[in-house]
Amino acid sequence: MQSAQDSDTSRLETFADGVMAIAITLLILDLHIPHVRPGDSLLHALAHQWPSYAGYVVSFLTIGIMWVNHHHMFKLIERSNHTFLMLNVVFLMAIAAVPWPTALVASAALDAHQRTVAAVVYGVVMVFVAIMFNVVWRYAARDGRLLVANVDLQAVERINRSYLFGPAAYVTATLVALANSWASLALYAGLAVYWMLPGTSRPSATLLVQPPSSASQPDGPSVVPDETQ
Amino acid sequence: MQSAQDSDTSRLETFADGVMAIAITLLILDLHIPHVRPGDSLLHALAHQWPSYAGYVVSFLTIGIMWVNHHHMFKLIERSNHTFLMLNVVFLMAIAAVPWPTALVASAALDAHQRTVAAVVYGVVMVFVAIMFNVVWRYAARDGRLLVANVDLQAVERINRSYLFGPAAYVTATLVALANSWASLALYAGLAVYWMLPGTSRPSATLLVQPPSSASQPDGPSVVPDETQ
Amino acid sequence: MQSAQDSDTSRLETFADGVMAIAITLLILDLHIPHVRPGDSLLHALAHQWPSYAGYVVSFLTIGIMWVNHHHMFKLIERSNHTFLMLNVVFLMAIAAVPWPTALVASAALDAHQRTVAAVVYGVVMVFVAIMFNVVWRYAARDGRLLVANVDLQAVERINRSYLFGPAAYVTATLVALANSWASLALYAGLAVYWMLPGTSRPSATLLVQPPSSASQPDGPSVVPDETQ
Amino acid sequence: MQSAQDSDTSRLETFADGVMAIAITLLILDLHIPHVRPGDSLLHALAHQWPSYAGYVVSFLTIGIMWVNHHHMFKLIERSNHTFLMLNVVFLMAIAAVPWPTALVASAALDAHQRTVAAVVYGVVMVFVAIMFNVVWRYAARDGRLLVANVDLQAVERINRSYLFGPAAYVTATLVALANSWASLALYAGLAVYWMLPGTSRPSATLLVQPPSSASQPDGPSVVPDETQ
Repeated sequence: MQSAQDSDTSRLETFADGVMAIAITLLILDLHIPHVRPGDSLLHALAHQWPSYAGYVVSFLTIGIMWVNHHHMFKLIERSNHTFLMLNVVFLMAIAAVPWPTALVASAALDAHQRTVAAVVYGVVMVFVAIMFNVVWRYAARDGRLLVANVDLQAVERINRSYLFGPAAYVTATLVALANSWASLALYAGLAVYWMLPGTSRPSATLLVQPPSSASQPDGPSVVPDETQ
Repeated sequence: MQSAQDSDTSRLETFADGVMAIAITLLILDLHIPHVRPGDSLLHALAHQWPSYAGYVVSFLTIGIMWVNHHHMFKLIERSNHTFLMLNVVFLMAIAAVPWPTALVASAALDAHQRTVAAVVYGVVMVFVAIMFNVVWRYAARDGRLLVANVDLQAVERINRSYLFGPAAYVTATLVALANSWASLALYAGLAVYWMLPGTSRPSATLLVQPPSSASQPDGPSVVPDETQ
Repeated sequence: MQSAQDSDTSRLETFADGVMAIAITLLILDLHIPHVRPGDSLLHALAHQWPSYAGYVVSFLTIGIMWVNHHHMFKLIERSNHTFLMLNVVFLMAIAAVPWPTALVASAALDAHQRTVAAVVYGVVMVFVAIMFNVVWRYAARDGRLLVANVDLQAVERINRSYLFGPAAYVTATLVALANSWASLALYAGLAVYWMLPGTSRPSATLLVQPPSSASQPDGPSVVPDETQ
Repeated sequence: MQSAQDSDTSRLETFADGVMAIAITLLILDLHIPHVRPGDSLLHALAHQWPSYAGYVVSFLTIGIMWVNHHHMFKLIERSNHTFLMLNVVFLMAIAAVPWPTALVASAALDAHQRTVAAVVYGVVMVFVAIMFNVVWRYAARDGRLLVANVDLQAVERINRSYLFGPAAYVTATLVALANSWASLALYAGLAVYWMLPGTSRPSATLLVQPPSSASQPDGPSVVPDETQ
């Protein structure tokens, strides 16, 4: 481990933000305009599309939470290297794929057998996203490799453990799909709502340190909350 | 209220700008290329698509105004926290949805009954956008929670009141659609034009303070206009 | 006119770069995958699409040149205000529309009558882009309103005149379409190639001054070239 | 060669990151939702689409590697000029085109003759990308024209040579398509995997110098690795 020679993670964050912003915004392209013949009810045709609206909301919130967590994670990461960039590319490959299983679930939701297949596919993609999130974090955090100085390594251990909840939750929801696809889809939605609540996705808050740019201040606190309320 | 420990709102602004830039640019995808058989008039087919052009202009300007106002708002906000990030994600979920009701109005504009449904749907999305804009602002502004220092809290109160015009205007335009869908669509267009005029959407101009980075200058003015002319 | 209180044009530049980056990248969505029955020649079907490839190249270069010129222009602009933001939104509305006339020309290029209509529509959009580019510049430059300090106002006059070439060229090419649509399309392509050449689109190079951040250096040169070769 | 007057490459990097982020994310739009009649197997229809998944992964990783290499390259480049901007626009025109040959290969992969044509087209686009990457680098590096100070010109020579591997590899894979299209597609995939491995695409690591902002530190090392492990 060396000092922050190539501390520039800003271009990585910009690229990651770009990919996540695009993936999240492309979700709207899967909401179609129903073709209604004159005389037929547009309102009825729109109502029939309800799985598309639900899919838009759940996947938007899920990618949004991923972005917030990526944001929290990079407050602790100040260095980068080739392997770390590549792991982030693979993570982004998973995130950028989310609009596809979302559209698949929306199109298959009203057919019992197809819904099971679609719920499993959605879950597999989400498991991949959650695993890559853990891989990116663990690569950066091992022995504090790419982290800011003065990080409490015991707190890193706690983050390591708490981040395992994501893959475990999505594996569970995927397996539930084999028994009950509606329950599985409800779990995906529930996870998004759960992670939006305060206090559920900010383990980084427990060890956020002073950024290095202000490290010259003597006796600065080494642990500050990232919450103002 | 505490000092600016996690003052970094820059990544949030970058992400929000990204989503708004993408949503605004995706609007063009709803302008289709008419399929004209050899001999038929392309000009006539293009003219028949006029609701799509009008929808592109109105929604582009509307999202553009939202971006400008978000820009003004964040001149006053210097801190962030988990809840604030999540509220912004929900705000962006509303903004990113705008291309869909725009395409719906364009496709339904020439059928009287469908136009009413489409105008109501457009209005509901816009009401949601305007409400979330207020929620984001009020969360940040309550007791100056996430604002820059030295903000005049009476001026914040004036902003609070002025921002209520947006939801009220869109609720009104939505209700008008039930009586006259053309009048409702004209109101949506009129609101976009109105907010483009100077002096209509910059309440923040009344209390813009020196940014904290230059706060070390003694006796700096605490209130400056954001208009150079 | 006042000093640089709200000198932050960075978020405007980021948003404009975002919209231009997205518009330029969406151009590829108009290159379709030909549906070829087994036995038929994919190569022949691909070759038949040549107007789409030409349109992609010409419009990509044209938006790219607009981005480069926007980049040059903003080296001279250091302040912003509500009206300026709104004028940029309208400029971006024109830029973001470019994929649509590009697809129109590509789909209509092989039909003589439709090609004339499409070439005129392409030209009208380009005239609008070029006019808005001039409007944005002139609003910022009038009396040096939003410009960096120490700008040579006679040089600003020269830029004003040189920027008029764009709208004039596109009006000409649009009118040519009424007589000969192939000649008009060749002119659009020729303009893109011409502006890519060194020395054709950088009037700003003649008056680029030291950025204000280094203005504290005594006796710094007030005019430097932006070309290193 | 002069000192860093117009050292601002940041807006170029932002624009390039934007285009690459969008191009990489648009790849998902080529994964379609199969239309399955009630009773037919969605799982079978999804499995039949395997060339689309392979194309998504290979092209995502390939653009991701291009982004990482662009990132490495710009650690060494600190100046810009009109010609350099234009060369980057042409490079981005090649990158932004990648989703199209990717979709072409995916749609043609299961037909022997069409697969050959598609593999050649994919290779031609990749050769163009790789050549433009070299052109951008060589324009910046010639005599250290746009590079940071203190660059070891012998190391630049080594980078020049190492970057030639890209075009050579893609020309080879393109020619292989004429004999065996599966082998050609396997080569494209193999190249992406190869470049993801540590140590294969970072010639810049051998001469990364202190950024100019910290050049005021006396006796700083002039060559540091960009790898922390």
